Amino acid sequence: MIIRQLVERQHSRGVTLVNSRLMHFVGFFLFAYFSLNFASIVRAQEKGPLPVMPLPAHVVQGEGEFPIDGNFGVTLKGYKEARLERARQRFLDTLSRETGIPLWREAIHNQPHFIVQTAGPSAAVQQLGEDESYHLEISATDVQLTAPNPIGVLRGLQTFLQLVRITPKGFSVPVVTIDDKPRFPWRGLLIDSGHRFVPVPAIKRNLDGMEAVKLNVFHWRFADNQGFHIESKEFPLLQEKGSGGYYYTQDEVRGVIAYARDRGMRVVPEFDMPCHTTSWFMGYPDLASRQDPSQSSAINPARESTYKFLDRFIGEMAALFPDSYFHAGGDECDVKEWEENPRIQDFMRAHGIKDGVALQEVFTSRIQKIIEGLKRTMMGWDEILQPNTPKNVVIHSWRGPDSLAEAARRGYRGVLSSGYYIDLNQSAAEHYQVDPLGAAAASLTSDQKARVLGGEATMWTDIVSDENMDNRIWPRTAAIAERLWYPQQVQDIDSMYQRLAIVSEKLGYYGPRHRLITDEMLQRMSGEPDPVPLRVLASVVQPPKLYERQKLRAFTDFTPLNRLDDAVPPESATAREFEALAKQIASGKAMPEDWRQAREWLVLWRDNDAKLQPLLSRSFLTQDLAPVSRNLSQVAEIGLRTLDDLHENRLVDARLRQQNIEFLKSSAQPQAVLLLMVAPSVELLVEATRTK
Amino acid sequence: MIIRQLVERQHSRGVTLVNSRLMHFVGFFLFAYFSLNFASIVRAQEKGPLPVMPLPAHVVQGEGEFPIDGNFGVTLKGYKEARLERARQRFLDTLSRETGIPLWREAIHNQPHFIVQTAGPSAAVQQLGEDESYHLEISATDVQLTAPNPIGVLRGLQTFLQLVRITPKGFSVPVVTIDDKPRFPWRGLLIDSGHRFVPVPAIKRNLDGMEAVKLNVFHWRFADNQGFHIESKEFPLLQEKGSGGYYYTQDEVRGVIAYARDRGMRVVPEFDMPCHTTSWFMGYPDLASRQDPSQSSAINPARESTYKFLDRFIGEMAALFPDSYFHAGGDECDVKEWEENPRIQDFMRAHGIKDGVALQEVFTSRIQKIIEGLKRTMMGWDEILQPNTPKNVVIHSWRGPDSLAEAARRGYRGVLSSGYYIDLNQSAAEHYQVDPLGAAAASLTSDQKARVLGGEATMWTDIVSDENMDNRIWPRTAAIAERLWYPQQVQDIDSMYQRLAIVSEKLGYYGPRHRLITDEMLQRMSGEPDPVPLRVLASVVQPPKLYERQKLRAFTDFTPLNRLDDAVPPESATAREFEALAKQIASGKAMPEDWRQAREWLVLWRDNDAKLQPLLSRSFLTQDLAPVSRNLSQVAEIGLRTLDDLHENRLVDARLRQQNIEFLKSSAQPQAVLLLMVAPSVELLVEATRTK
Repeated sequence: MIIRQLVERQHSRGVTLVNSRLMHFVGFFLFAYFSLNFASIVRAQEKGPLPVMPLPAHVVQGEGEFPIDGNFGVTLKGYKEARLERARQRFLDTLSRETGIPLWREAIHNQPHFIVQTAGPSAAVQQLGEDESYHLEISATDVQLTAPNPIGVLRGLQTFLQLVRITPKGFSVPVVTIDDKPRFPWRGLLIDSGHRFVPVPAIKRNLDGMEAVKLNVFHWRFADNQGFHIESKEFPLLQEKGSGGYYYTQDEVRGVIAYARDRGMRVVPEFDMPCHTTSWFMGYPDLASRQDPSQSSAINPARESTYKFLDRFIGEMAALFPDSYFHAGGDECDVKEWEENPRIQDFMRAHGIKDGVALQEVFTSRIQKIIEGLKRTMMGWDEILQPNTPKNVVIHSWRGPDSLAEAARRGYRGVLSSGYYIDLNQSAAEHYQVDPLGAAAASLTSDQKARVLGGEATMWTDIVSDENMDNRIWPRTAAIAERLWYPQQVQDIDSMYQRLAIVSEKLGYYGPRHRLITDEMLQRMSGEPDPVPLRVLASVVQPPKLYERQKLRAFTDFTPLNRLDDAVPPESATAREFEALAKQIASGKAMPEDWRQAREWLVLWRDNDAKLQPLLSRSFLTQDLAPVSRNLSQVAEIGLRTLDDLHENRLVDARLRQQNIEFLKSSAQPQAVLLLMVAPSVELLVEATRTK
Repeated sequence: MIIRQLVERQHSRGVTLVNSRLMHFVGFFLFAYFSLNFASIVRAQEKGPLPVMPLPAHVVQGEGEFPIDGNFGVTLKGYKEARLERARQRFLDTLSRETGIPLWREAIHNQPHFIVQTAGPSAAVQQLGEDESYHLEISATDVQLTAPNPIGVLRGLQTFLQLVRITPKGFSVPVVTIDDKPRFPWRGLLIDSGHRFVPVPAIKRNLDGMEAVKLNVFHWRFADNQGFHIESKEFPLLQEKGSGGYYYTQDEVRGVIAYARDRGMRVVPEFDMPCHTTSWFMGYPDLASRQDPSQSSAINPARESTYKFLDRFIGEMAALFPDSYFHAGGDECDVKEWEENPRIQDFMRAHGIKDGVALQEVFTSRIQKIIEGLKRTMMGWDEILQPNTPKNVVIHSWRGPDSLAEAARRGYRGVLSSGYYIDLNQSAAEHYQVDPLGAAAASLTSDQKARVLGGEATMWTDIVSDENMDNRIWPRTAAIAERLWYPQQVQDIDSMYQRLAIVSEKLGYYGPRHRLITDEMLQRMSGEPDPVPLRVLASVVQPPKLYERQKLRAFTDFTPLNRLDDAVPPESATAREFEALAKQIASGKAMPEDWRQAREWLVLWRDNDAKLQPLLSRSFLTQDLAPVSRNLSQVAEIGLRTLDDLHENRLVDARLRQQNIEFLKSSAQPQAVLLLMVAPSVELLVEATRTK
């Protein structure tokens, strides 16, 4: 059955993508755009791994399939609770969306063949390290999902949903037996509601995505210099003066916490102190280290009133957030504010505090005691790790795996975020290769390794809005989720990308809007309902990585994020696929089909500029793309000529070759805050030519 | 400024859509798919009418534009209430979505140049006939919106949003002065939550769409034979036994009513009685006319206990719904149930009731008194109009304008829905040409005409789900909304379609999902992330109109609505545009560009089958499309040959010509519950050829 389907797919691929130039373009261009092509699926299935993310720890595949039709239903057995009933209902709702089959009345009409057996409850407040294992057994006639607690059930239901596919006979899942559990107990996503407010619906749809890839910690950061976005009843001026009117009410926060618990996720709040806190001072200027609170970003650690305030405030927030961990930030303190304040200097002298770093340690120690007094464990960024930091504090590493390993050696538990900064536009492959137990941590003892709890992807919103956030988070966060779930050894980047493409499509059913965003933004930018040539350009450019983008474009808190570098995904799938083709051709291993495919892409890109230019000039948001579009055309022109040279084994003029290489190198430089991702691949081709 | 932009657009159209075959295809195909092309926009702007729907009653266009940038803000002056503040905030949120400019902090930072002046309050509960007028004056530097009450403000804000466009200088609205008010006071949309439950988010996003086109009545129908989908606290078995677990809580209903009021809309509830009521009997079998309640759809009007029940039930619902009107249904009673029940027959004899129709009149009269006792006005379908019906009852006409006119003559007020059944897949043009004061109503006196209150589009859910509902409602309902708002004389179908295309795109920012649904459903049907050849086929087929579809496919309450006739919009814009081309060519008026365009489309369709067939065979949801796809290919083949004949002025063989006509006629017949919409246009071409 499966084999036949594969053959059909392969056949179709030939017809759809190769035989017709027209369809080839449309197919490939749009596929690439949405990060998927038939070939990938075929390869993924031939190689064997289930097309799911994260990969389950143990899989035994069988023959045949279990059908999903109007008779589908789920029965809950064993331990019962309302959360399980809601999970069952959500599962059926999602399956209805995936299939279009109305399953919502199944309880009345069906004799379910899907049995969920839950042994017992999980903790009243989800704890770090709770059992998330499950056993999923799919035969041609029955499905058994068993788990020690509801969290394992949630994980197993998500695996099932990802297995659903359409066939000539109907919707079905393959026969398979899965035993699964995570590698790390802390698998998180940070959403930064401090820089820019993120409305609750955007939070929730991303929690839905997190559930799908089995993440279990939502790290929610509420404040930064730019804004204070949560309601305090103790200190209402925090939100009244610091939020611009946009903040989460405590009821909304409780709603999100309940929403997360329903999905097997903890919610760890972060209030970053003592720095990044300008917004706090709008309502409470006495907290500031500088006279002018709007010019101050650091809390004054020298006043006793500061601690009185924070004692009450942290108490209020700990009552709101039931999680055992409380993140107090602590990163990037500019000690200058303290050095310039004579009263703080007096305080430091009086207490023998030698410098700003030592002063922050004093502050952190006070905060840690407040948090401990509330029966919570403090967590903080790298900087809070100082000589006298209590051993139960959890270190959150943004500096890198070395500092995390160092902390583990010294006896501290830690969570890695360095390498998982999804706001920095790195590739899924780059993130995938970062391992919390890689680099310096690889040499830790097993006791030390056990202190490395896992990792967190970080969605900072300095230059990302709630509109384009989903396309930064997804699908790449699924690769990070797999890294944190599946045993360490998996390093197959190709398999990861193949499965990522399939999961990316599935995520559309679960909540995230990442597959819709680019199109919507291109429509807005151009004022056209379907700006095809702009989409062609968009499919081969990327925003620059790391902090390059901020150097090329001035961002303030009020900068509209509506340009092409905001709209395109961080990773061009088209460029990645073209690079693979170029490598095949350059190494002499290309098939005739590869040649044809490369040529057709290059023709498309060469001819696109003539269609795109008039469109660009009509909108102020696209005018600066004119040189990028021209470059694409010229790069493609060089590529086409080079393909001919290679194909005919022609010897090329050395000077022209060098000129082309230089032009391609310069075309690979950022322009309009964008990188033309196909230029380096064309350079590969040119470098494969031989000179006269 | 505007002129220059037009020229650029026209130029671009040439480049984008004509010069390249490749882009032409993609452009036109996708444009058509989304019901918009450049040409339409150009024509709309050249002709003058603002690209908004409904057209405002009085417009004076000026020169220049008012820019929308980060300095944009709105100040409310005059009468104040929380609803206006929320409207202002929603307006800014929507404008932010339309532009990508973060306007949410504008209150702090800007000196608004947009002044809203409200004279006074509207009624505490929105009333039929309340003033909805507004005056909107846009200069290059300032915007003034004045209205007698908040409802007029809401209308004016929507007009402003529809005027926003992107230009080479930035986002802006044109300089214009508008005086506007509606033609009819009752402009509604019925959503049927009786046949299939429609979740609250789907209701709300369609209320957002209604607000955008200035509808003011949400007619919400809660029950039918299939389900009873609202909570009754007096009779909880109604929802417990009759809803399959899916019903609106009273809190949710209050939430929707508040949501509608915020958008200047009344909510009129409908509880259809005494028929279509099987679901009521699941919990309360004593209400039924038959022994077996599951086989009964009519309430027993002969028992006094029925009226006790309904008195309490209607009392509860009237307390929940503040609107002055209460819709009690009354349609399509099958009197057989009463004739077969001996006790009901006894009752009729005892009271001298001659037949079922008279018995329904007795029932209706009792219900009318209950409703009147609750200080509500009863509304009901055509059937409730009987010799003794009280004059204040409002007649809701599903039978047609003649019965509405007859009611008006007899002194009854009425609302038209016949002709506005958007579930029946008619064209926007067909709906647009239906006028509540057209047909027989045209001859009414002006007093009688005043009794015709307006109309309601009806979204029945017998064979529409909450998934594809938006694509049945939008954009066609905007055409009905214009008919009900703008003075009677407008009959320009071309202008309507041009503006409809623009408004359709705008609606995407406001809430409705109609532009996303088809794509999502095609992806699901095919199991492919971007099934291009299936999309080509989808762009030229339509579900059959009126009740034809139900004859071709067996539907039950549980039928998955996930096939191509569910997925495609009711109206193929591509087919409509191709028809216009065919008419030009057949009449000898075509330009060379028209010939080229027709040819390219036909080539696309001819070649599509080879790409589509392998894809169709892979999914059980697409297998039956194989003959439709083949037909498209053959129709296109005939079209191409005919284009050559016409172009070369060739005389064709009479027998072959006749064979082709017959084939085209048979291809225009439904197949796989779909109509191939381009076949009749190709037939037009063949008929334009001359025989040897």
